[in-house]
Amino acid sequence: MKKHYLLTPGPALIPEEVTDAMAKPIIHHRTQGYRDIVKTANENLKKIFKTENNVLTFTSSGTGAMEASIANTLSAGDTAIIVRGGKFGERFAEICESYGVTAVPLDIEWGTAPDPAKVGRALEENPTAKAVFMQLCETSTATVYDIKAVAEVVGKTNAILVVDAISGLGADEFEMDKWNVDIAIGGSQKAFMLPPGLSFCAVSKKAWDLIKKSTLPKYYYDFNKYEKLAGKSDSPWTPAITLVIGLAKALSMITEKGVDNFIKSHVSDAEFLRGSVKKLGLELFSKSPSNAVTAIKVPEGLDGAKLTSSLKTKGVTVAGGQAHLKGKIIRIAHMGAITQKDLEFALGKLKEALKEQNLKV
Amino acid sequence: MKKHYLLTPGPALIPEEVTDAMAKPIIHHRTQGYRDIVKTANENLKKIFKTENNVLTFTSSGTGAMEASIANTLSAGDTAIIVRGGKFGERFAEICESYGVTAVPLDIEWGTAPDPAKVGRALEENPTAKAVFMQLCETSTATVYDIKAVAEVVGKTNAILVVDAISGLGADEFEMDKWNVDIAIGGSQKAFMLPPGLSFCAVSKKAWDLIKKSTLPKYYYDFNKYEKLAGKSDSPWTPAITLVIGLAKALSMITEKGVDNFIKSHVSDAEFLRGSVKKLGLELFSKSPSNAVTAIKVPEGLDGAKLTSSLKTKGVTVAGGQAHLKGKIIRIAHMGAITQKDLEFALGKLKEALKEQNLKV
Repeated sequence: MKKHYLLTPGPALIPEEVTDAMAKPIIHHRTQGYRDIVKTANENLKKIFKTENNVLTFTSSGTGAMEASIANTLSAGDTAIIVRGGKFGERFAEICESYGVTAVPLDIEWGTAPDPAKVGRALEENPTAKAVFMQLCETSTATVYDIKAVAEVVGKTNAILVVDAISGLGADEFEMDKWNVDIAIGGSQKAFMLPPGLSFCAVSKKAWDLIKKSTLPKYYYDFNKYEKLAGKSDSPWTPAITLVIGLAKALSMITEKGVDNFIKSHVSDAEFLRGSVKKLGLELFSKSPSNAVTAIKVPEGLDGAKLTSSLKTKGVTVAGGQAHLKGKIIRIAHMGAITQKDLEFALGKLKEALKEQNLKV
Repeated sequence: MKKHYLLTPGPALIPEEVTDAMAKPIIHHRTQGYRDIVKTANENLKKIFKTENNVLTFTSSGTGAMEASIANTLSAGDTAIIVRGGKFGERFAEICESYGVTAVPLDIEWGTAPDPAKVGRALEENPTAKAVFMQLCETSTATVYDIKAVAEVVGKTNAILVVDAISGLGADEFEMDKWNVDIAIGGSQKAFMLPPGLSFCAVSKKAWDLIKKSTLPKYYYDFNKYEKLAGKSDSPWTPAITLVIGLAKALSMITEKGVDNFIKSHVSDAEFLRGSVKKLGLELFSKSPSNAVTAIKVPEGLDGAKLTSSLKTKGVTVAGGQAHLKGKIIRIAHMGAITQKDLEFALGKLKEALKEQNLKV
């Protein structure tokens, strides 16, 4: 059977054991059997988020959880600081605008990480700001942000720090409790090795205090409704049962290996890919590259779209650039079940594709 | 292999062909291959909803789509009429309250259907009401509502008619366009024969006119974002890829059989179950029974919870009652892939369980 090289930053590869778990006859969610599965999954989710807080699970894409982090904490007319260094930073700002929240953008060059001191200055200049929103890994630029340093700055104020860790979690180092992150957001189709359809929010005490004052409307994503049932391993609405069963399986695989070892394997895969890319004479796009995904500059004169479609005909699916980076970068993921062997195969095909394109240029 | 008799009104049984389709290696959603699958699914969705309108697909539980139908059409301070004859009627009212919309409840006895003339009167008494919200099948009471007759009444006013058809669609007769329904809501874990995780909204021209004036905040569920991409078989956020692939498979199975034949098989299964239940000397709870699920009164002196757990030990999972019906009814679903043979098996076990309980009483 031909191997399937899906090396995009979500969806990522799904191990057979997880697929098998999801293919079992479906069970009802208001049963002890299902609750036992959720209980184990919830305990293991905490290990990935490195937190003692409950991790709330939603049936939605990651964007739903991003919206939830705003709708649950803020009120119309509030101010929030948004680190905007890519498509997902922009998304936070757009959601704020939809909700009548004033988004103060902290714009940074795409492919760079924010200077923590600048976040501090933005908070000084906007002393009423209730929250800072930023990514752990800005997927569109394959850039990791220094959450630990920013959290130190935000922690000295009344504002909460909300981190979209959707593509970074499990791949880039992340410590919710130790670093004092207030809301951490995850998504299933990344290092979790699952199909898309689940998103997660872990919520700190400081965030809960703000949530009490929030007047923005919410129902489906109302954190209170989920938190109330978290202790009973239950959920307010019918959950995506098969995905949650897959989640339990994937998390047991990750925690058996150990979360820190899981992250270490991402570090070594990412280092391997970055080194190999440079050996090919190519440049990395990001000045602060993530361990979840690598962005490679498309050499001057080459067409990025042609490169990705050429790779596709060779059996390797990678992502192109988004917005103004369209055609200018390609992104290769190394999250979850993707191995160094997969990356080696992709590199071989990339070399072939480049040769073919160079001949044409 | 022991057969699995999951006869609850969601999740319902999933055919093997659908499970197999979902277990194939995951593909990326921004590819022509995936869009082709979505295109076929979207065309077949229209056949189930009996509409020429686009059917928008969300990654969420049905409750998310119920909230979307409110957040997209109304503004704070608006008035809406809610038919409240069970748990899901109540849910519409709760969502309205969360959004600052005045919910005028039209309370009816649980297990009965609303009198269309009373909906007309409520609209006369509340001439500013922008919408009427009701169920096709109120799952908590297994009761089908006469949407056609209510739609005639609502159609004479400026208000839109929003129908939560989540548990009824595919089982109870429903004609979105012919009857003039403005928003029809569906959910994957019912007659669609899928796991939970997808919800649907079909939206009429009259509803779109109201949507233009709506000022309630929304982002993830913003109908405009989905409608804009519907023609391209694309979606604004990462979709629940595996569930959508299962959807395409399930819909092709349903439409090959013919939607009307599919509904007819539900009618005959429901009639069979209702007749058999009466032969056992039991009473139906609903005065307007649905073809998706049947509610049976637990005989005086018996404990409904004991009955459902006794059935469970015999290999049959059915649902109990919710809220004040807890312990007083049991609900047996006959939606989607559930066959008359499955119902016969369940009836045999019900007979056994009743005998055992009677001995104890």
